[in-house]
Amino acid sequence: MQIGIIGLGKMGYNLALNMMDHNHDVVAFDLDKQAVQRLAQEKATGASSIQDLVKKLSTPRVIWVMVPHGKPVDNLIDQLTPLLSKGDIIIEGGNSHYKESVRHAEDLSKHGVYFFDVGTSGGTEGARHGACYMIGGDPEVFKTIEPLFRDTAVPNGYVYTGRAGSGHYCKMVHNGVEYGMMAAIGEGFEVLEKSPFDYDFAEVARCWSNGSVIRGWLMELAEAAFRNDPRLEQIKGVVHSSGEGKWTVEEALNFQVAAPIITMSLLMRYRSEDKDTFTGKVQAALRNQFGGHAVEKA
Amino acid sequence: MQIGIIGLGKMGYNLALNMMDHNHDVVAFDLDKQAVQRLAQEKATGASSIQDLVKKLSTPRVIWVMVPHGKPVDNLIDQLTPLLSKGDIIIEGGNSHYKESVRHAEDLSKHGVYFFDVGTSGGTEGARHGACYMIGGDPEVFKTIEPLFRDTAVPNGYVYTGRAGSGHYCKMVHNGVEYGMMAAIGEGFEVLEKSPFDYDFAEVARCWSNGSVIRGWLMELAEAAFRNDPRLEQIKGVVHSSGEGKWTVEEALNFQVAAPIITMSLLMRYRSEDKDTFTGKVQAALRNQFGGHAVEKA
Repeated sequence: MQIGIIGLGKMGYNLALNMMDHNHDVVAFDLDKQAVQRLAQEKATGASSIQDLVKKLSTPRVIWVMVPHGKPVDNLIDQLTPLLSKGDIIIEGGNSHYKESVRHAEDLSKHGVYFFDVGTSGGTEGARHGACYMIGGDPEVFKTIEPLFRDTAVPNGYVYTGRAGSGHYCKMVHNGVEYGMMAAIGEGFEVLEKSPFDYDFAEVARCWSNGSVIRGWLMELAEAAFRNDPRLEQIKGVVHSSGEGKWTVEEALNFQVAAPIITMSLLMRYRSEDKDTFTGKVQAALRNQFGGHAVEKA
Repeated sequence: MQIGIIGLGKMGYNLALNMMDHNHDVVAFDLDKQAVQRLAQEKATGASSIQDLVKKLSTPRVIWVMVPHGKPVDNLIDQLTPLLSKGDIIIEGGNSHYKESVRHAEDLSKHGVYFFDVGTSGGTEGARHGACYMIGGDPEVFKTIEPLFRDTAVPNGYVYTGRAGSGHYCKMVHNGVEYGMMAAIGEGFEVLEKSPFDYDFAEVARCWSNGSVIRGWLMELAEAAFRNDPRLEQIKGVVHSSGEGKWTVEEALNFQVAAPIITMSLLMRYRSEDKDTFTGKVQAALRNQFGGHAVEKA
Protein backbone atom coordinates (compact mmCIF):
# COMPACT_ATOMS: atom_id res chain seq x y z
CA MET A 1 0.00 0.00 0.00
CA GLN A 2 0.93 3.67 -0.22
CA ILE A 3 2.24 5.27 2.94
CA GLY A 4 3.51 8.71 3.87
CA ILE A 5 6.32 8.84 6.41
CA ILE A 6 7.22 12.03 8.23
CA GLY A 7 10.43 11.87 10.23
CA LEU A 8 13.46 10.10 8.79
CA GLY A 9 15.55 9.76 11.93
CA LYS A 10 17.15 6.45 12.90
CA MET A 11 13.77 4.76 13.40
CA GLY A 12 11.79 6.39 10.60
CA TYR A 13 14.46 5.95 7.95
CA ASN A 14 14.95 2.26 8.70
CA LEU A 15 11.21 1.69 8.88
CA ALA A 16 10.84 3.30 5.45
CA LEU A 17 13.45 0.93 4.00
CA ASN A 18 11.71 -2.00 5.68
CA MET A 19 8.36 -0.96 4.15
CA MET A 20 9.89 -0.63 0.69
CA ASP A 21 11.41 -4.11 1.06
CA HIS A 22 7.82 -5.28 1.33
CA ASN A 23 6.66 -3.39 -1.77
CA HIS A 24 4.90 -0.55 -0.02
CA ASP A 25 5.09 2.81 -1.78
CA VAL A 26 6.73 5.30 0.53
CA VAL A 27 6.28 9.06 0.23
CA ALA A 28 8.74 10.63 2.67
CA PHE A 29 9.33 14.00 4.27
CA ASP A 30 11.83 15.26 6.80
CA LEU A 31 13.14 18.75 7.64
CA ASP A 32 16.54 17.25 6.75
CA LYS A 33 16.46 17.44 2.94
CA GLN A 34 19.48 15.16 2.61
CA ALA A 35 17.66 12.34 4.41
CA VAL A 36 14.76 12.73 1.95
CA GLN A 37 17.16 12.70 -1.02
CA ARG A 38 18.97 9.63 0.30
CA LEU A 39 15.69 7.76 0.73
CA ALA A 40 14.50 8.91 -2.73
CA GLN A 41 17.56 7.12 -4.17
CA GLU A 42 16.11 3.94 -2.61
CA LYS A 43 12.90 4.27 -4.66
CA ALA A 44 10.92 6.37 -2.17
CA THR A 45 9.05 9.42 -3.42
CA GLY A 46 10.53 12.49 -1.77
CA ALA A 47 8.27 15.30 -0.59
CA SER A 48 9.45 18.89 -0.26
CA SER A 49 6.99 19.83 2.50
CA ILE A 50 4.18 18.44 4.58
CA GLN A 51 1.73 19.96 2.08
CA ASP A 52 3.59 18.27 -0.76
CA LEU A 53 3.51 14.91 1.06
CA VAL A 54 -0.23 15.19 1.65
CA LYS A 55 -0.78 16.10 -2.03
CA LYS A 56 1.22 13.10 -3.21
CA LEU A 57 -0.87 10.62 -1.22
CA SER A 58 -4.15 9.24 -2.54
CA THR A 59 -7.12 9.11 -0.17
CA PRO A 60 -7.70 7.64 2.28
CA ARG A 61 -4.20 8.77 3.16
CA VAL A 62 -2.06 6.80 5.61
CA ILE A 63 0.64 8.89 7.26
CA TRP A 64 3.19 7.42 9.67
CA VAL A 65 4.55 10.06 12.02
CA MET A 66 7.96 9.19 13.47
CA VAL A 67 9.20 12.29 15.28
CA PRO A 68 10.16 12.84 18.95
CA HIS A 69 7.25 12.84 21.39
CA GLY A 70 5.86 16.00 22.94
CA LYS A 71 6.00 19.28 21.02
CA PRO A 72 7.27 17.80 17.73
CA VAL A 73 4.35 15.34 17.57
CA ASP A 74 1.86 18.03 18.67
CA ASN A 75 3.09 20.55 16.11
CA LEU A 76 3.12 18.03 13.32
CA ILE A 77 -0.42 16.86 14.01
CA ASP A 78 -1.56 20.49 14.23
CA GLN A 79 -0.02 21.13 10.81
CA LEU A 80 -1.44 17.98 9.29
CA THR A 81 -5.01 18.25 10.58
CA PRO A 82 -6.34 20.99 8.25
CA LEU A 83 -4.69 19.30 5.24
CA LEU A 84 -6.35 15.92 5.76
CA SER A 85 -9.70 14.55 4.59
CA LYS A 86 -12.31 12.44 6.29
CA GLY A 87 -11.17 8.82 6.49
CA ASP A 88 -7.45 9.63 6.47
CA ILE A 89 -5.26 7.84 8.99
CA ILE A 90 -2.40 9.06 11.18
CA ILE A 91 -0.10 6.42 12.69
CA GLU A 92 1.99 7.85 15.52
CA GLY A 93 4.94 5.53 16.08
CA GLY A 94 6.93 7.35 18.76
CA ASN A 95 7.19 6.95 22.51
CA SER A 96 4.43 9.42 23.35
CA HIS A 97 2.60 9.52 26.65
CA TYR A 98 -0.64 7.63 26.23
CA LYS A 99 -2.70 10.57 27.45
CA GLU A 100 -1.35 12.64 24.55
CA SER A 101 -2.43 9.88 22.21
CA VAL A 102 -5.91 9.73 23.72
CA ARG A 103 -6.14 13.50 23.18
CA HIS A 104 -4.85 13.30 19.59
CA ALA A 105 -7.35 10.57 18.77
CA GLU A 106 -10.22 12.64 20.17
CA ASP A 107 -9.17 15.84 18.38
CA LEU A 108 -8.66 14.09 15.05
CA SER A 109 -11.94 12.17 15.30
CA LYS A 110 -13.72 15.56 15.11
CA HIS A 111 -12.25 15.87 11.61
CA GLY A 112 -13.09 12.28 10.73
CA VAL A 113 -9.41 11.37 10.80
CA TYR A 114 -8.37 8.08 12.47
CA PHE A 115 -5.47 8.05 14.89
CA PHE A 116 -3.36 5.00 15.77
CA ASP A 117 -0.78 5.06 18.55
CA VAL A 118 1.92 2.54 17.90
CA GLY A 119 4.59 1.61 20.40
CA THR A 120 7.62 0.31 18.53
CA SER A 121 10.23 -1.93 20.12
CA GLY A 122 13.35 -3.70 18.87
CA GLY A 123 15.61 -0.72 18.23
CA THR A 124 16.87 0.50 14.85
CA GLU A 125 17.80 -3.03 13.81
CA GLY A 126 14.20 -4.03 14.47
CA ALA A 127 12.89 -1.08 12.49
CA ARG A 128 15.05 -2.14 9.57
CA HIS A 129 14.55 -5.90 9.56
CA GLY A 130 11.58 -6.71 11.79
CA ALA A 131 10.08 -4.58 14.53
CA CYS A 132 7.65 -5.23 17.38
CA TYR A 133 4.47 -3.13 17.51
CA MET A 134 1.77 -2.45 20.10
CA ILE A 135 -1.13 -0.77 18.30
CA GLY A 136 -4.09 1.18 19.66
CA GLY A 137 -6.95 2.69 17.61
CA ASP A 138 -10.19 1.91 15.79
CA PRO A 139 -10.54 -1.91 15.48
CA GLU A 140 -12.22 -1.88 12.04
CA VAL A 141 -9.88 0.64 10.42
CA PHE A 142 -6.97 -1.28 11.94
CA LYS A 143 -7.71 -4.13 9.54
CA THR A 144 -7.09 -1.84 6.56
CA ILE A 145 -3.58 -0.93 7.75
CA GLU A 146 -2.70 -4.28 9.33
CA PRO A 147 -0.58 -5.36 6.30
CA LEU A 148 1.88 -2.56 7.08
CA PHE A 149 2.50 -3.97 10.54
CA ARG A 150 2.43 -7.60 9.46
CA ASP A 151 5.00 -6.96 6.75
CA THR A 152 7.46 -4.90 8.79
CA ALA A 153 7.29 -6.76 12.12
CA VAL A 154 9.03 -10.02 12.96
CA PRO A 155 6.65 -12.99 12.70
CA ASN A 156 4.05 -12.68 15.51
CA GLY A 157 5.62 -9.33 16.44
CA TYR A 158 2.59 -7.05 16.59
CA VAL A 159 -0.51 -6.85 18.72
CA TYR A 160 -3.70 -4.82 18.43
CA THR A 161 -4.19 -3.63 22.01
CA GLY A 162 -7.56 -1.85 21.90
CA ARG A 163 -8.74 1.74 21.71
CA ALA A 164 -6.46 4.71 21.10
CA GLY A 165 -3.89 5.17 23.85
CA SER A 166 -3.57 1.47 24.62
CA GLY A 167 -0.67 1.02 22.21
CA HIS A 168 1.51 3.65 23.80
CA TYR A 169 0.42 2.55 27.28
CA CYS A 170 1.50 -1.00 26.48
CA LYS A 171 4.86 0.25 25.14
CA MET A 172 5.30 2.40 28.26
CA VAL A 173 4.86 -0.67 30.49
CA HIS A 174 7.17 -2.66 28.20
CA ASN A 175 9.85 -0.09 28.90
CA GLY A 176 9.15 -0.15 32.63
CA VAL A 177 9.67 -3.93 32.60
CA GLU A 178 12.84 -3.34 30.58
CA TYR A 179 14.18 -1.00 33.30
CA GLY A 180 13.66 -3.66 35.95
CA MET A 181 15.12 -6.48 33.88
CA MET A 182 18.18 -4.41 32.98
CA ALA A 183 18.75 -3.48 36.62
CA ALA A 184 18.54 -7.14 37.68
CA ILE A 185 21.05 -8.12 34.99
CA GLY A 186 23.37 -5.28 35.95
CA GLU A 187 23.26 -6.18 39.64
CA GLY A 188 23.90 -9.84 38.89
CA PHE A 189 27.06 -9.07 36.97
CA GLU A 190 28.21 -6.70 39.72
CA VAL A 191 27.85 -9.49 42.29
CA LEU A 192 29.92 -11.72 39.97
CA GLU A 193 32.44 -8.91 39.53
CA LYS A 194 32.90 -8.46 43.31
CA SER A 195 32.89 -12.23 43.95
CA PRO A 196 35.93 -14.30 44.98
CA PHE A 197 35.96 -15.82 41.48
CA ASP A 198 37.34 -14.56 38.21
CA TYR A 199 34.57 -14.75 35.65
CA ASP A 200 34.74 -14.14 31.94
CA PHE A 201 31.52 -12.13 31.74
CA ALA A 202 31.12 -12.55 27.99
CA GLU A 203 31.32 -16.31 28.46
CA VAL A 204 28.84 -16.24 31.33
CA ALA A 205 26.43 -14.10 29.29
CA ARG A 206 26.91 -16.43 26.32
CA CYS A 207 26.04 -19.43 28.50
CA TRP A 208 23.06 -17.65 30.09
CA SER A 209 21.81 -16.80 26.58
CA ASN A 210 21.56 -20.49 25.68
CA GLY A 211 19.19 -22.73 27.56
CA SER A 212 18.98 -20.82 30.84
CA VAL A 213 15.80 -19.47 32.43
CA ILE A 214 17.02 -15.87 31.99
CA ARG A 215 17.89 -16.16 28.31
CA GLY A 216 16.66 -13.38 26.08
CA TRP A 217 17.74 -10.50 23.88
CA LEU A 218 19.04 -8.35 26.75
CA MET A 219 21.41 -11.15 27.78
CA GLU A 220 22.59 -11.49 24.19
CA LEU A 221 23.26 -7.75 24.14
CA ALA A 222 25.18 -8.13 27.41
CA GLU A 223 27.36 -10.77 25.77
CA ALA A 224 28.04 -8.44 22.83
CA ALA A 225 28.94 -5.60 25.20
CA PHE A 226 31.35 -7.79 27.20
CA ARG A 227 32.95 -9.17 24.01
CA ASN A 228 33.63 -5.60 22.99
CA ASP A 229 34.94 -4.45 26.38
CA PRO A 230 35.41 -7.38 28.82
CA ARG A 231 35.20 -5.27 32.02
CA LEU A 232 33.27 -2.33 30.48
CA GLU A 233 36.19 -0.06 31.29
CA GLN A 234 35.27 2.28 28.44
CA ILE A 235 31.83 3.02 29.88
CA LYS A 236 30.69 4.96 32.96
CA GLY A 237 27.86 3.46 34.99
CA VAL A 238 25.55 6.37 34.27
CA VAL A 239 22.10 5.35 33.05
CA HIS A 240 19.84 7.97 31.56
CA SER A 241 16.14 7.54 30.96
CA SER A 242 13.70 9.02 28.50
CA GLY A 243 10.30 9.05 30.15
CA GLU A 244 8.54 5.71 29.83
CA GLY A 245 9.98 4.26 33.04
CA LYS A 246 8.89 7.34 34.98
CA TRP A 247 5.43 7.21 33.42
CA THR A 248 5.09 3.54 34.34
CA VAL A 249 5.86 4.42 37.96
CA GLU A 250 3.38 7.32 37.83
CA GLU A 251 0.71 4.95 36.51
CA ALA A 252 1.54 2.43 39.21
CA LEU A 253 1.10 5.20 41.81
CA ASN A 254 -2.16 6.39 40.20
CA PHE A 255 -3.65 2.91 40.38
CA GLN A 256 -1.94 2.03 43.70
CA VAL A 257 0.04 -0.84 42.23
CA ALA A 258 2.97 -1.68 44.49
CA ALA A 259 5.71 -1.83 41.86
CA PRO A 260 8.93 -1.53 43.86
CA ILE A 261 11.18 -3.25 41.33
CA ILE A 262 10.34 -0.98 38.40
CA THR A 263 10.29 2.04 40.73
CA MET A 264 13.66 1.21 42.25
CA SER A 265 15.23 0.63 38.86
CA LEU A 266 14.10 4.13 37.85
CA LEU A 267 15.40 5.68 41.08
CA MET A 268 18.75 3.90 40.70
CA ARG A 269 19.02 5.36 37.18
CA TYR A 270 18.49 8.83 38.63
CA ARG A 271 21.10 8.11 41.31
CA SER A 272 23.58 6.95 38.67
CA GLU A 273 23.43 10.39 37.08
CA ASP A 274 24.49 12.20 40.26
CA LYS A 275 28.12 13.10 40.87
CA ASP A 276 27.33 13.71 44.53
CA THR A 277 24.07 13.59 46.47
CA PHE A 278 22.45 15.87 48.98
CA THR A 279 20.92 12.79 50.60
CA GLY A 280 24.44 11.55 51.23
CA LYS A 281 25.69 14.90 52.51
CA VAL A 282 22.85 15.09 55.03
CA GLN A 283 23.53 11.60 56.33
CA ALA A 284 27.30 12.14 56.52
CA ALA A 285 26.68 15.37 58.42
CA LEU A 286 24.34 13.63 60.88
CA ARG A 287 26.81 10.78 61.53
CA ASN A 288 29.45 13.41 62.18
CA GLN A 289 27.13 15.33 64.53
CA PHE A 290 26.06 12.48 66.74
CA GLY A 291 29.08 10.20 66.59
CA GLY A 292 32.01 12.25 65.40
CA HIS A 293 32.29 9.99 62.35
CA ALA A 294 34.66 11.41 59.75
CA VAL A 295 33.18 13.09 56.69
CA GLU A 296 34.76 13.18 53.25
CA LYS A 297 35.52 16.81 52.37
CA ALA A 298 33.92 18.23 49.24
CA MET B 1 31.52 -42.25 28.15
CA GLN B 2 30.39 -44.18 31.20
CA ILE B 3 28.66 -42.17 33.92
CA GLY B 4 27.10 -42.99 37.25
CA ILE B 5 24.04 -41.00 38.23
CA ILE B 6 22.77 -40.88 41.79
CA GLY B 7 19.40 -39.23 42.23
CA LEU B 8 16.63 -39.91 39.73
CA GLY B 9 14.25 -37.10 40.62
CA LYS B 10 12.77 -34.83 37.95
CA MET B 11 16.17 -33.40 37.00
CA GLY B 12 18.34 -36.50 37.38
CA TYR B 13 15.97 -38.83 35.55
CA ASN B 14 15.63 -36.51 32.56
CA LEU B 15 19.36 -35.85 32.50
CA ALA B 16 19.99 -39.62 32.44
CA LEU B 17 17.68 -40.00 29.43
CA ASN B 18 19.42 -37.05 27.75
CA MET B 19 22.82 -38.67 28.31
CA MET B 20 21.67 -41.99 26.91
CA ASP B 21 20.32 -40.18 23.84
CA HIS B 22 23.93 -39.18 23.27
CA ASN B 23 25.29 -42.71 23.66
CA HIS B 24 26.69 -42.33 27.16
CA ASP B 25 26.46 -45.44 29.33
CA VAL B 26 24.46 -44.63 32.42
CA VAL B 27 24.70 -46.57 35.67
CA ALA B 28 21.93 -45.28 37.92
CA PHE B 29 20.97 -45.43 41.56
CA ASP B 30 18.14 -43.93 43.56
CA LEU B 31 16.56 -44.85 46.90
CA ASP B 32 13.36 -45.16 44.84
CA LYS B 33 13.84 -48.61 43.31
CA GLN B 34 10.99 -48.08 40.85
CA ALA B 35 12.79 -45.10 39.32
CA VAL B 36 15.89 -47.26 38.85
CA GLN B 37 13.81 -50.02 37.27
CA ARG B 38 12.07 -47.58 34.94
CA LEU B 39 15.40 -46.15 33.80
CA ALA B 40 16.85 -49.65 33.39
CA GLN B 41 14.08 -50.31 30.85
CA GLU B 42 15.55 -47.39 28.86
CA LYS B 43 18.92 -49.14 28.55
CA ALA B 44 20.52 -47.78 31.73
CA THR B 45 22.32 -50.15 34.07
CA GLY B 46 20.51 -50.17 37.38
CA ALA B 47 22.45 -50.27 40.65
CA SER B 48 21.04 -51.69 43.87
CA SER B 49 23.11 -49.51 46.18
CA ILE B 50 25.78 -46.85 46.17
CA GLN B 51 28.37 -49.59 46.64
CA ASP B 52 26.94 -51.48 43.68
CA LEU B 53 27.02 -48.33 41.53
CA VAL B 54 30.66 -47.68 42.40
CA LYS B 55 31.54 -51.31 41.61
CA LYS B 56 29.84 -51.14 38.23
CA LEU B 57 31.87 -48.11 37.11
CA SER B 58 35.34 -48.43 35.63
CA THR B 59 38.05 -46.07 36.86
CA PRO B 60 38.47 -43.20 36.73
CA ARG B 61 34.82 -43.15 37.78
CA VAL B 62 32.56 -40.22 36.90
CA ILE B 63 29.59 -39.88 39.24
CA TRP B 64 26.90 -37.26 38.74
CA VAL B 65 25.14 -36.44 42.02
CA MET B 66 21.65 -34.97 41.55
CA VAL B 67 20.06 -34.84 45.00
CA PRO B 68 18.69 -31.91 47.04
CA HIS B 69 21.33 -29.54 48.42
CA GLY B 70 22.37 -29.51 52.07
CA LYS B 71 22.22 -32.73 54.10
CA PRO B 72 21.39 -35.06 51.19
CA VAL B 73 24.46 -33.89 49.23
CA ASP B 74 26.65 -33.98 52.34
CA ASN B 75 25.55 -37.48 53.32
CA LEU B 76 25.94 -38.82 49.83
CA ILE B 77 29.47 -37.45 49.46
CA ASP B 78 30.37 -38.84 52.90
CA GLN B 79 29.16 -42.25 51.80
CA LEU B 80 30.92 -42.10 48.45
CA THR B 81 34.31 -40.83 49.61
CA PRO B 82 35.68 -44.06 51.14
CA LEU B 83 34.48 -46.06 48.12
CA LEU B 84 36.28 -43.96 45.50
CA SER B 85 39.79 -44.16 44.09
CA LYS B 86 42.34 -41.52 43.25
CA GLY B 87 41.40 -39.78 40.01
CA ASP B 88 37.66 -40.40 40.34
CA ILE B 89 35.32 -37.49 39.68
CA ILE B 90 32.19 -36.29 41.45
CA ILE B 91 29.90 -33.90 39.57
CA GLU B 92 27.46 -32.17 41.88
CA GLY B 93 24.62 -30.81 39.77
CA GLY B 94 22.25 -29.36 42.38
CA ASN B 95 21.62 -25.87 43.68
CA SER B 96 24.13 -26.07 46.54
CA HIS B 97 25.59 -23.05 48.30
CA TYR B 98 28.99 -22.37 46.74
CA LYS B 99 30.74 -22.49 50.12
CA GLU B 100 29.55 -26.09 50.52
CA SER B 101 31.04 -26.85 47.13
CA VAL B 102 34.35 -25.22 48.02
CA ARG B 103 34.41 -27.40 51.14
CA HIS B 104 33.50 -30.58 49.25
CA ALA B 105 36.23 -29.91 46.70
CA GLU B 106 38.82 -29.42 49.46
CA ASP B 107 37.76 -32.53 51.38
CA LEU B 108 37.71 -34.73 48.28
CA SER B 109 41.05 -33.43 47.03
CA LYS B 110 42.63 -35.00 50.13
CA HIS B 111 41.51 -38.34 48.69
CA GLY B 112 42.66 -37.47 45.18
CA VAL B 113 39.03 -37.20 44.04
CA TYR B 114 38.03 -34.31 41.77
CA PHE B 115 34.92 -32.33 42.52
CA PHE B 116 32.91 -30.30 40.01
CA ASP B 117 30.08 -28.01 41.04
CA VAL B 118 27.60 -27.63 38.23
CA GLY B 119 24.75 -25.14 38.26
CA THR B 120 22.01 -26.41 35.98
CA SER B 121 19.39 -24.16 34.42
CA GLY B 122 16.55 -24.67 31.98
CA GLY B 123 14.17 -26.72 34.11
CA THR B 124 13.20 -30.36 33.56
CA GLU B 125 12.58 -29.75 29.86
CA GLY B 126 16.16 -28.48 29.61
CA ALA B 127 17.49 -31.49 31.50
CA ARG B 128 15.70 -33.76 29.03
CA HIS B 129 16.44 -32.02 25.72
CA GLY B 130 19.21 -29.47 26.31
CA ALA B 131 20.27 -27.91 29.58
CA CYS B 132 22.43 -24.92 30.53
CA TYR B 133 25.45 -25.57 32.76
CA MET B 134 27.82 -23.39 34.80
CA ILE B 135 30.77 -25.57 35.79
CA GLY B 136 33.48 -25.06 38.41
CA GLY B 137 36.43 -27.39 39.12
CA ASP B 138 39.87 -28.43 37.94
CA PRO B 139 40.49 -26.96 34.45
CA GLU B 140 42.50 -29.93 33.11
CA VAL B 141 40.21 -32.65 34.40
CA PHE B 142 37.28 -30.61 33.07
CA LYS B 143 38.42 -31.39 29.54
CA THR B 144 37.98 -35.13 30.18
CA ILE B 145 34.31 -34.71 31.16
CA GLU B 146 33.47 -31.84 28.80
CA PRO B 147 31.75 -34.18 26.27
CA LEU B 148 29.06 -34.92 28.87
CA PHE B 149 28.17 -31.24 29.10
CA ARG B 150 28.56 -30.54 25.38
CA ASP B 151 26.25 -33.41 24.50
CA THR B 152 23.49 -32.70 26.99
CA ALA B 153 23.42 -28.89 26.85
CA VAL B 154 21.81 -26.76 24.17
CA PRO B 155 24.38 -25.50 21.66
CA ASN B 156 26.65 -22.98 23.43
CA GLY B 157 24.80 -23.77 26.66
CA TYR B 158 27.64 -24.48 29.07
CA VAL B 159 30.50 -22.48 30.51
CA TYR B 160 33.56 -23.46 32.50
CA THR B 161 33.62 -20.78 35.21
CA GLY B 162 36.88 -21.48 37.06
CA ARG B 163 37.85 -23.19 40.29
CA ALA B 164 35.46 -25.23 42.44
CA GLY B 165 32.60 -23.15 43.83
CA SER B 166 32.43 -20.81 40.85
CA GLY B 167 29.84 -22.93 39.09
CA HIS B 168 27.33 -22.87 41.91
CA TYR B 169 28.14 -19.20 42.59
CA CYS B 170 27.35 -18.38 38.98
CA LYS B 171 24.09 -20.33 39.14
CA MET B 172 23.20 -18.56 42.41
CA VAL B 173 23.59 -15.17 40.72
CA HIS B 174 21.65 -16.45 37.70
CA ASN B 175 18.76 -17.17 40.04
CA GLY B 176 19.09 -13.76 41.69
CA VAL B 177 18.80 -12.12 38.27
CA GLU B 178 15.83 -14.38 37.58
CA TYR B 179 14.07 -13.11 40.74
CA GLY B 180 14.50 -9.50 39.60
CA MET B 181 13.40 -10.17 36.03
CA MET B 182 10.35 -12.10 37.16
CA ALA B 183 9.35 -9.32 39.56
CA ALA B 184 9.68 -6.71 36.78
CA ILE B 185 7.53 -8.81 34.46
CA GLY B 186 4.95 -9.37 37.20
CA GLU B 187 4.72 -5.68 38.06
CA GLY B 188 4.42 -4.74 34.39
CA PHE B 189 1.42 -6.99 33.91
CA GLU B 190 -0.14 -5.70 37.12
CA VAL B 191 0.12 -2.12 35.81
CA LEU B 192 -1.55 -3.30 32.59
CA GLU B 193 -4.18 -5.12 34.64
CA LYS B 194 -5.07 -1.99 36.65
CA SER B 195 -4.86 0.31 33.61
CA PRO B 196 -7.87 1.96 31.92
CA PHE B 197 -7.45 -0.45 29.00
CA ASP B 198 -8.58 -4.03 28.52
CA TYR B 199 -5.54 -6.05 27.48
CA ASP B 200 -5.38 -9.64 26.35
CA PHE B 201 -2.29 -10.53 28.38
CA ALA B 202 -1.49 -13.66 26.37
CA GLU B 203 -1.51 -11.54 23.21
CA VAL B 204 0.66 -8.86 24.82
CA ALA B 205 3.13 -11.49 26.05
CA ARG B 206 3.10 -13.11 22.60
CA CYS B 207 3.93 -9.76 21.00
CA TRP B 208 6.63 -8.97 23.60
CA SER B 209 8.16 -12.40 22.91
CA ASN B 210 8.72 -11.51 19.27
CA GLY B 211 11.03 -8.67 18.34
CA SER B 212 10.79 -6.61 21.53
CA VAL B 213 13.70 -5.61 23.75
CA ILE B 214 12.31 -7.70 26.64
CA ARG B 215 11.83 -10.90 24.65
CA GLY B 216 13.11 -14.07 26.25
CA TRP B 217 12.08 -17.38 27.73
CA LEU B 218 10.36 -15.89 30.79
CA MET B 219 8.08 -13.85 28.51
CA GLU B 220 7.30 -16.98 26.48
CA LEU B 221 6.39 -18.77 29.72
CA ALA B 222 4.19 -15.79 30.65
CA GLU B 223 2.35 -16.18 27.35
CA ALA B 224 1.84 -19.90 28.04
CA ALA B 225 0.52 -19.14 31.54
CA PHE B 226 -1.94 -16.52 30.24
CA ARG B 227 -3.12 -18.84 27.42
CA ASN B 228 -3.90 -21.41 30.09
CA ASP B 229 -5.62 -18.98 32.48
CA PRO B 230 -6.16 -15.53 30.90
CA ARG B 231 -6.41 -13.63 34.23
CA LEU B 232 -4.52 -16.19 36.35
CA GLU B 233 -7.63 -16.69 38.43
CA GLN B 234 -6.58 -20.23 39.34
CA ILE B 235 -3.34 -19.07 41.01
CA LYS B 236 -2.67 -17.16 44.22
CA GLY B 237 0.04 -14.49 44.07
CA VAL B 238 2.23 -16.31 46.59
CA VAL B 239 5.85 -16.71 45.47
CA HIS B 240 8.08 -19.10 47.36
CA SER B 241 11.85 -19.19 47.09
CA SER B 242 14.42 -21.91 47.55
CA GLY B 243 17.63 -20.23 48.66
CA GLU B 244 19.63 -18.88 45.72
CA GLY B 245 17.96 -15.46 45.72
CA LYS B 246 18.64 -15.07 49.45
CA TRP B 247 22.26 -16.19 48.99
CA THR B 248 22.71 -13.67 46.17
CA VAL B 249 21.52 -10.90 48.47
CA GLU B 250 23.82 -12.18 51.25
CA GLU B 251 26.76 -12.12 48.83
CA ALA B 252 25.81 -8.61 47.71
CA LEU B 253 25.81 -7.54 51.36
CA ASN B 254 29.14 -9.29 52.05
CA PHE B 255 30.81 -7.47 49.19
CA GLN B 256 28.84 -4.22 49.70
CA VAL B 257 27.21 -4.37 46.30
CA ALA B 258 24.11 -2.16 46.26
CA ALA B 259 21.67 -4.59 44.69
CA PRO B 260 18.25 -3.16 45.53
CA ILE B 261 16.37 -4.76 42.64
CA ILE B 262 17.37 -8.34 43.44
CA THR B 263 16.99 -7.64 47.16
CA MET B 264 13.53 -6.12 46.76
CA SER B 265 12.36 -8.97 44.57
CA LEU B 266 13.36 -11.39 47.34
CA LEU B 267 11.65 -9.30 50.02
CA MET B 268 8.49 -9.05 47.94
CA ARG B 269 8.47 -12.85 47.64
CA TYR B 270 8.65 -13.09 51.42
CA ARG B 271 5.83 -10.56 51.71
CA SER B 272 3.71 -12.52 49.24
CA GLU B 273 3.80 -15.49 51.62
CA ASP B 274 2.30 -13.55 54.52
CA LYS B 275 -1.43 -13.64 55.20
CA ASP B 276 -1.06 -10.61 57.47
CA THR B 277 1.98 -8.62 58.56
CA PHE B 278 3.17 -7.33 61.89
CA THR B 279 4.73 -4.38 60.04
CA GLY B 280 1.26 -3.50 58.83
CA LYS B 281 -0.33 -3.95 62.28
CA VAL B 282 2.22 -1.61 63.87
CA GLN B 283 1.65 1.08 61.26
CA ALA B 284 -2.15 0.78 61.43
CA ALA B 285 -1.94 1.03 65.24
CA LEU B 286 0.25 4.15 65.04
CA ARG B 287 -2.06 5.86 62.51
CA ASN B 288 -4.92 5.09 64.85
CA GLN B 289 -2.98 6.44 67.87
CA PHE B 290 -1.95 9.78 66.42
CA GLY B 291 -4.78 10.52 64.01
CA GLY B 292 -7.69 8.33 65.01
CA HIS B 293 -7.53 6.63 61.60
CA ALA B 294 -9.71 3.53 61.44
CA VAL B 295 -8.05 0.14 61.75
CA GLU B 296 -9.30 -3.06 60.13
CA LYS B 297 -10.18 -5.55 62.86
CA ALA B 298 -8.38 -8.90 62.89
